[in-house]
Amino acid sequence: MLDFNDKYSEYLRYFEESLDKKLSSLYKTAPSVIKDAMAYAVEGGGKRVRPVLCYATCEMLGGNITDVTELALAIEFIHSYSLVHDDLPSMDNDDYRRGKFSTHKQFGEAIGVLAGDALLNFAFEILLSKKDITDGYINAAKIVADYAGYGGMIGGQVLDLLSEKSVRSDEKTLYDIYINKTAKLITAPILAASCVTGGKHFDALKEYGSDLGLLFQITDDLMDAFGTKEEIGKTPHKDEAENKLTSIKVFGADGAKEKARECYLNAKAVIEKIDDIGFLTAFTDKMFQRRS
Amino acid sequence: MLDFNDKYSEYLRYFEESLDKKLSSLYKTAPSVIKDAMAYAVEGGGKRVRPVLCYATCEMLGGNITDVTELALAIEFIHSYSLVHDDLPSMDNDDYRRGKFSTHKQFGEAIGVLAGDALLNFAFEILLSKKDITDGYINAAKIVADYAGYGGMIGGQVLDLLSEKSVRSDEKTLYDIYINKTAKLITAPILAASCVTGGKHFDALKEYGSDLGLLFQITDDLMDAFGTKEEIGKTPHKDEAENKLTSIKVFGADGAKEKARECYLNAKAVIEKIDDIGFLTAFTDKMFQRRS
Repeated sequence: MLDFNDKYSEYLRYFEESLDKKLSSLYKTAPSVIKDAMAYAVEGGGKRVRPVLCYATCEMLGGNITDVTELALAIEFIHSYSLVHDDLPSMDNDDYRRGKFSTHKQFGEAIGVLAGDALLNFAFEILLSKKDITDGYINAAKIVADYAGYGGMIGGQVLDLLSEKSVRSDEKTLYDIYINKTAKLITAPILAASCVTGGKHFDALKEYGSDLGLLFQITDDLMDAFGTKEEIGKTPHKDEAENKLTSIKVFGADGAKEKARECYLNAKAVIEKIDDIGFLTAFTDKMFQRRS
Repeated sequence: MLDFNDKYSEYLRYFEESLDKKLSSLYKTAPSVIKDAMAYAVEGGGKRVRPVLCYATCEMLGGNITDVTELALAIEFIHSYSLVHDDLPSMDNDDYRRGKFSTHKQFGEAIGVLAGDALLNFAFEILLSKKDITDGYINAAKIVADYAGYGGMIGGQVLDLLSEKSVRSDEKTLYDIYINKTAKLITAPILAASCVTGGKHFDALKEYGSDLGLLFQITDDLMDAFGTKEEIGKTPHKDEAENKLTSIKVFGADGAKEKARECYLNAKAVIEKIDDIGFLTAFTDKMFQRRS
């Protein structure tokens, strides 16, 4: 019988080990401040949701965790860069992240911009560093690049920005933002793992990733509205202050909770049919219950 | 007998065609503002030095220009993103670029940050979009990623930033900045072309790229100091105003001209031995003579 927490810890350990290895392989000759800022942004960072999803999907589909080492790292570096740039004064202007100063607050704004760039660029350096690149791996890398870009996460951030200035607060706009801004980088590690194991259950996992991503974003909204700085590791009530279009604004608090339940039930219905290990099913439960 | 200008125009035409094709293939569903900002930053843009170097090296080594279509595009997108971020208020704070408003000035600072991110990400989307990826192509892509990153161009920009606040104005520091900030993204298209044609003349071309890149940066310094806004398409005399460490600061104007000549002669000596077409040799001459 699988113990969820043990398995999660095992995945975390593997990720942190592979991260340490990558960071300690950085060129000795490169300026220390950029390496420090990159490490600062990516280290001590949260629950590593995306790498864990990548490992768990890979193992569920019969693959070996070492097949997705680079993919998991690259996606986490992309996630980290997006947070660094998102926190910049011209963007969300947030001084705190994961319970400490945001990167630009710690290193200055110019280094904040460059560290974000360096993390994004490094994600692709990592992807290309894989030995014995297969067609499946290239497909996985393509999905990562596609889902992270203007047609995915970055596009979603643009819509999010525009929503602050807009009077539109309809469900369709909200869905567009959430799918792109959040769900695509949650779906990417899942689909990447499918690609390297031969494309198994690709369509179902795409649906799972979307629902899980929406669930993740809506629970994030609820935490921003009802959590404390200690619980969530960043300034709460930012969404309202910035007039962001959120699930709470569109559906109300009770409506947002109901939407979260819908996404949870959809995600669970899809993953239960595939998941013979039980980890991702339990992961989906935890995501619905999370308070941090 | 090769006509340099005709050949340059042919390369430019090929580049602009492949760029148009890429830009018109962008997802219809993505937010128009990010696609407009990306196009704004990369269109109507200068001499396309890096793509031209990539094509010319490829043809000189017996390859077909279509082998490096994606590499040339990707490198130009990386170059464009670096300019967009470099112009941001927290960086060089420049309102003009290539004779028009810089991207953040035209679209606002937040979109400036995100458009830069999108261009960088898109460079790798392009690289991964190549059909029939060979080992040589992967090596080429690795060099692009490596030379653009924290250990290359971004690292050089960091050193450049640090130099503004530093009292150090020695030749070694200047060389570190110029090699990384400028020469690596001039060398990348040359070496990428070598990789896809089987690694021909790799070491010699690396030396050529370094010298050509240094020459490019020093002539840039001279134009900043002595050119007009009309000639150079951006605000002149910025280096001095920002207390940047430049070749003119280290060597004086005459000394910088002398250094440019040294780099030119070194570059020419290397390329003449390989170049049976004459284009890159002529290119090197033009680079030394340029005033814009």
